[in-house]
Amino acid sequence: MTDETGNTKFSVKTFDSDRDLQGEGGGGKDNPTGKNGESLFGYSNPAFTGSFHSKLSEVEMKGSNDFTLIDEPKRSTIKAIKTVVPWLKQKVQKACTKKMLHRRLPIISWLPQYNSQDAIGDLVAGITVGLMVIPQSLAYASIAGLPPQYGLYSSFLGCFIYIVLGTCKDVPMGPTAIASILTFQIVQGRSPEYAILLSFLSGIIELLMGFFGLGFLVDFVSGPVSSGFTSAAALIILTSQVKDLLGIKASGSTFVQTWTSIISNIHGLSGWDTFLGAASIIVLLLMRLMTKIKFGPEETSDSAPNKFQKFANATIWIISTSRNAILVVVCGFIGYFLFTSYEDVPVKLIGDIPSGLPEIKVPAFSMNSGNTTTSFLDMLATLGSGVILVPLLALLEDIAICKAFANGKSIDATQELLSIGVSNVATSFFQGFPITGALSRSAVLNSSGARTPFNGFYTGVLVIAALLFFTPYFFYIPKASLAAIIIAAVIFMVEVKVVRPMWRCKKSDFFLALATFVACLVLALEVGILVGIGMNLLFILYYAARPKITIEKLVSSNGIEYLMLTPDRCLIFPSVDYVRNLVTKHSVRQEIPVVIDCSHIYGADYTAATVIDTLTKDFACRNQVLIFYNLKPSVSNVFEALSPKEFLVSYNEEDVNSLLSRKTTELKARCNI
Amino acid sequence: MTDETGNTKFSVKTFDSDRDLQGEGGGGKDNPTGKNGESLFGYSNPAFTGSFHSKLSEVEMKGSNDFTLIDEPKRSTIKAIKTVVPWLKQKVQKACTKKMLHRRLPIISWLPQYNSQDAIGDLVAGITVGLMVIPQSLAYASIAGLPPQYGLYSSFLGCFIYIVLGTCKDVPMGPTAIASILTFQIVQGRSPEYAILLSFLSGIIELLMGFFGLGFLVDFVSGPVSSGFTSAAALIILTSQVKDLLGIKASGSTFVQTWTSIISNIHGLSGWDTFLGAASIIVLLLMRLMTKIKFGPEETSDSAPNKFQKFANATIWIISTSRNAILVVVCGFIGYFLFTSYEDVPVKLIGDIPSGLPEIKVPAFSMNSGNTTTSFLDMLATLGSGVILVPLLALLEDIAICKAFANGKSIDATQELLSIGVSNVATSFFQGFPITGALSRSAVLNSSGARTPFNGFYTGVLVIAALLFFTPYFFYIPKASLAAIIIAAVIFMVEVKVVRPMWRCKKSDFFLALATFVACLVLALEVGILVGIGMNLLFILYYAARPKITIEKLVSSNGIEYLMLTPDRCLIFPSVDYVRNLVTKHSVRQEIPVVIDCSHIYGADYTAATVIDTLTKDFACRNQVLIFYNLKPSVSNVFEALSPKEFLVSYNEEDVNSLLSRKTTELKARCNI
Repeated sequence: MTDETGNTKFSVKTFDSDRDLQGEGGGGKDNPTGKNGESLFGYSNPAFTGSFHSKLSEVEMKGSNDFTLIDEPKRSTIKAIKTVVPWLKQKVQKACTKKMLHRRLPIISWLPQYNSQDAIGDLVAGITVGLMVIPQSLAYASIAGLPPQYGLYSSFLGCFIYIVLGTCKDVPMGPTAIASILTFQIVQGRSPEYAILLSFLSGIIELLMGFFGLGFLVDFVSGPVSSGFTSAAALIILTSQVKDLLGIKASGSTFVQTWTSIISNIHGLSGWDTFLGAASIIVLLLMRLMTKIKFGPEETSDSAPNKFQKFANATIWIISTSRNAILVVVCGFIGYFLFTSYEDVPVKLIGDIPSGLPEIKVPAFSMNSGNTTTSFLDMLATLGSGVILVPLLALLEDIAICKAFANGKSIDATQELLSIGVSNVATSFFQGFPITGALSRSAVLNSSGARTPFNGFYTGVLVIAALLFFTPYFFYIPKASLAAIIIAAVIFMVEVKVVRPMWRCKKSDFFLALATFVACLVLALEVGILVGIGMNLLFILYYAARPKITIEKLVSSNGIEYLMLTPDRCLIFPSVDYVRNLVTKHSVRQEIPVVIDCSHIYGADYTAATVIDTLTKDFACRNQVLIFYNLKPSVSNVFEALSPKEFLVSYNEEDVNSLLSRKTTELKARCNI
Repeated sequence: MTDETGNTKFSVKTFDSDRDLQGEGGGGKDNPTGKNGESLFGYSNPAFTGSFHSKLSEVEMKGSNDFTLIDEPKRSTIKAIKTVVPWLKQKVQKACTKKMLHRRLPIISWLPQYNSQDAIGDLVAGITVGLMVIPQSLAYASIAGLPPQYGLYSSFLGCFIYIVLGTCKDVPMGPTAIASILTFQIVQGRSPEYAILLSFLSGIIELLMGFFGLGFLVDFVSGPVSSGFTSAAALIILTSQVKDLLGIKASGSTFVQTWTSIISNIHGLSGWDTFLGAASIIVLLLMRLMTKIKFGPEETSDSAPNKFQKFANATIWIISTSRNAILVVVCGFIGYFLFTSYEDVPVKLIGDIPSGLPEIKVPAFSMNSGNTTTSFLDMLATLGSGVILVPLLALLEDIAICKAFANGKSIDATQELLSIGVSNVATSFFQGFPITGALSRSAVLNSSGARTPFNGFYTGVLVIAALLFFTPYFFYIPKASLAAIIIAAVIFMVEVKVVRPMWRCKKSDFFLALATFVACLVLALEVGILVGIGMNLLFILYYAARPKITIEKLVSSNGIEYLMLTPDRCLIFPSVDYVRNLVTKHSVRQEIPVVIDCSHIYGADYTAATVIDTLTKDFACRNQVLIFYNLKPSVSNVFEALSPKEFLVSYNEEDVNSLLSRKTTELKARCNI
């Protein structure tokens, strides 16, 4: 990370985002500690007593070559094209270093130090999450509008892959509520081949995003948009389960459609289903509350709980955590009892699930149904923006877990993208639908003591065992109890808590979240989040277009009055005409020299250069002095490329003063002639 | 323009873009001179000798309430809703002031002072442009793919309306090459009703844009995108005329399609048409060069030209300027001669043009052709994004004229939008297609001595006269000569001149222009400009997302080493995670107190607040001191809404020093316990 532009300064390091990203794309940026960690912070001035500002401005001046809005290549373009080959070579070489190997295969770092404590922690955590994921995956398949076995098909391979590629011990790879509801809204009840293709394509996109270092795209989903989206998704998921809970038939993919359909079918309500479902929800919520019960002394007190108390607390915690599995087993028995007792079973059961592991086959790139052939392009058109949005939201959920348990460590988004990408591509060959790190299981994973990503092994094995041996028993699970599991979980995904702080923080952010929420409900989820992101980007663009200008009337040391105008942001195309209008308006009125303070201007472009050219011409026509103060050399280079006449730049106050007096005298002399 | 937030400072005025825009939308911002021109710049400090920087930072601190990224309403939302009615009332009242009347009806300002000199200037200019516009409008109709009379129908009403509403004497309202080719690509050879509806809808959109102050949207079309688009449009227009020039049949709307069609039909080339067309182009280009001939002494010498020389120069200028009209008349005679001499006319003539003024009728909002009815929504879907792009590009062309002849005066985009909007709506009732200020005629208008917008009267009258009396003679005008007129004009629209300065200024801008150019040629014009604008916005977003951070190791006055991090831009959602990662990375490595210099941070949002909250928590966990230096109060308010713990802010160097020593001692004491 040495500075190409000639880094003569020891004390300053400017982070060039371009280079950082490139590095990440090609296999991670190099770690500055290694190469120049010593010289980097070598500067220290024990006698430093001067003012902050003079110090800072000096540093900025030196560093300002890096401040162009878009870094110019210092070489010609033909050269640049020629350097693509060595660049690729360098990337490959870089990717083969030992450090890079450790980055790309994190297992190498932790496996040699794996000890018995790690093994126990991972075993407990893996089995706990395994017990969670089996009922969840059946339920998520129903959210995605697929037969239940597809949930199990999606739940094991990702776990194994994440052991090798994953960076965060708390990420449980597998189907998630959000990915499932997105799959449903995108596939809209078509055959499972679409969901499998979506998984494959999402994986490919994730790998591409990883390779090109596009992990930063998640930064464009802001907190408010994410909250609005998640809350709406939760409500839509809840809505999608109401029909199973009430034992009625209903269709529709958006919130409004589904509720309309539910209300028009409410007459078919089944008492047994509704009762079982409602009871299940209540039981689940009570079992969730159980963790609040703590035996022994309070945590704040100094005395430790005794053995019995510890055991009781642990038991309660385990029961509470495996509440979904317990409920499924109990309801399964009820289902079995009802199935054997009644001729006409009064509750809807999951029904037959094919036993055994899924057939390994290439995802369908075209489909034949009867006489009609659906081509790959037709299928792609059906998936539409989902092919981009599923990867984006998969990454968002995964990164959210990494962040939650990072403890201030930085996150390797590129490596996570690779893990999710490989998992999705591989899973699509096992007939799975899109998967990612599941936020809902990550907290359990963390609190049940996971120590390395190896915990996924036990989860995966449990799911495989379920597929091989338990599927006949799944027949008896009532649909209403699965619906209850989902509903009891997703109601906590509605982010009511953020409303107050968001309102206090920034009203516009609150309205943005609300708009995203409503758009996701009324339109489709994927449209809603695009609307939210779009609106958010408009805010940024608007404020890039309308900088603020502070205007002062000052008097130079030699008694010349002048106007000092200070724009607060970059001079780039959407703002520069606005700035010109303001400058012109005020300078025409005052008829005194004008100084434009460019301290805050870090970038400029061709449009700005043309406008500055016109501005200097206008001032020259009016015989009015115009001085650019503290213009960064890089910006000045852009402006001077058009060789504007009478373009005066000065870099310190004295210079401004002397320029002012010289120019004013010149003008007076000219006017007198 | 008094400051709502309580403007206690005399010296500082912060331009709040929100309010400015509101003002413009509701009928123009008020002119600051009138209301507070005196107090505004009342501050002057004759004894000013201090440093710029300390001065400026003080001013910024005071003004910083205005620096939030999004201005918060100071009142509650319910109140805000209640104030909508008075706001509307105020807008209406404002719109009725005398000043506003002058702004909205600029004719009131200049008509009372109209004198004989103005009358002569306008008469000459108006007639000159009238002679230009008649052949041009026939040609433009052919560009738009419409029968020639529609060009004339579009050319008179706008001139009359602009007299009353227009702000710039040099704007010739009427059909233009760009608007015509856009119309062609949008309507794609459908019946004229579509073009007329496009004109009507464009007018409505322009009026709405004017009312809501959306004139700033043209700022989002940067110089490079505009150059790329104009050059591509010129080539497409040229391409569209080649078939008439060669006398062959060809179809297609994009550049590539049309050329493919031309090449496959080249065998039908008509020698007469080609010869006439080529000869016309050569004659036109030579006549264009005539203006270079100057009799008499050179302009730089002191002696003035004598009467004869003046007369000769003026004659040459008039002949050169009316070259299109002359060519049309001459070629018309040739056409007449050929028509009467040959049974099978060897050149294609324009043919019958219905005589008389157009029938006044409401634009068609639905269409019946045979059995099929096309509904309004179907027609709207056909016009598609054109309904937005035509107004945008119409405004762009009009504003370009205003800027070119503004001589440093500011431009009233709102009023121009109203002028264009009313002109388009009105013209659509006279069966015209979209019109705007025509860049090609504006230069002639300016150089032929236009003094007020009244020159449009003569142009309009000439066009009406043409419609009433001359249409029978238009029958004989060869199509090839009209094509020649267009080609000889548009080749100068290809902006070859900007390539060099753009390349020197900023390579990325050059590539952007090139990409827009290629996209406009290969895809359609309206798609190409959207691609260009989109790419340009991506640049802005990327640089909003990746600020640069300068890092220094400093030592406080009492000998404590600390890291000083200075981000250079706003902390808003796409960048804040990136900043957090960088801050964390460097602070974890150094384990010394960290000071974040927030001098350049003018805005923050909820996402930033949550990240800052996490950051302070992380630092607290690590027992590392984190101080925010020089944080604007508005930004600080946003951060503090989440009540982060250990959130330290200081506003001057001494404060930082004392905070550093106090906190370091505290932490040491805590660690020793």
